[in-house]
Formats: sequence, structure tokens, C-alpha cells
Amino acid sequence: MNTKILKNFGTRLKYIRKEKGLTQEELAEKVGIHPTYVGKIESGKSNLSLLMIFRISRALGIKLYEMFEFDN
Amino acid sequence: MNTKILKNFGTRLKYIRKEKGLTQEELAEKVGIHPTYVGKIESGKSNLSLLMIFRISRALGIKLYEMFEFDN
Repeated sequence: MNTKILKNFGTRLKYIRKEKGLTQEELAEKVGIHPTYVGKIESGKSNLSLLMIFRISRALGIKLYEMFEFDN
Repeated sequence: MNTKILKNFGTRLKYIRKEKGLTQEELAEKVGIHPTYVGKIESGKSNLSLLMIFRISRALGIKLYEMFEFDN
């Protein structure tokens, strides 16, 4: 399993979340997931689905492609 | 389940695949998946994972964000 891409995605998510001034708890509530799951994603430990990525992008108020603006 | 985003993603994938001059079978072989699964994704019937999206982007020779350049 290529975990590097999951880690890079998690790092990107963390960056955007902080840029939006949200805590993990606040983002989790907006998405409707558990705060520990946000932590799991941000540390690259979740191979999340497209629908989950979409729900997160909506909660952050950004377009999907913006979630993927990192080296890959 | 928001199937619209899955359909839009599938349409985008189909567009890129054809642009690259690949059949579903050829793309499937490059990714290492079954051709029917490519068809399933392209018709918006699969809520695929980040790692699978990454493997497909690699097989197409593009960056991840390019897979998401559609209205959402």
C-alpha cells in the first residue's frame, strides 16, 4: 500500500483546515464524523473514499481539486 | 449517498482515458484491475478509494488534481 500519498493528502487536509481556522472537532462536526477520524485521515492512516473526500471538501467550502494541490 | 459526484468523476475519468487514446481494457491492465471495474467507475457506480484514484492517475500519467477538474 502506497501510504505516502495518504500521508501527503492528510498533510494537505490539515493545512487547509488550519487555514480555515477550524479545529479537528469543528471540522468533524461539520462533516458529521468522529473527531478521531479526522485525526486518522490527517496522519495518513485512512484510505478514505471519494464520497468522504467530497463531504470534507464541502465542509471546508472548497472544490475537490483544491484538496489535491500537493506534490504527487 | 451523493451519486452525482461519483457520476461526474466517472465522466471525467472517461474523458481523460479517451484523450489518452486508451480503451477500458488497456487502462484496466495498466492499473491492474478488471475491465468491468473501469466501466463501473466510469458510470459512477463505485465509491472508490483515494489509493485507487491515485493508481488510476498514475496509469494515466497525470497528477491527482487533474482527475478532479470538473464542476462540483
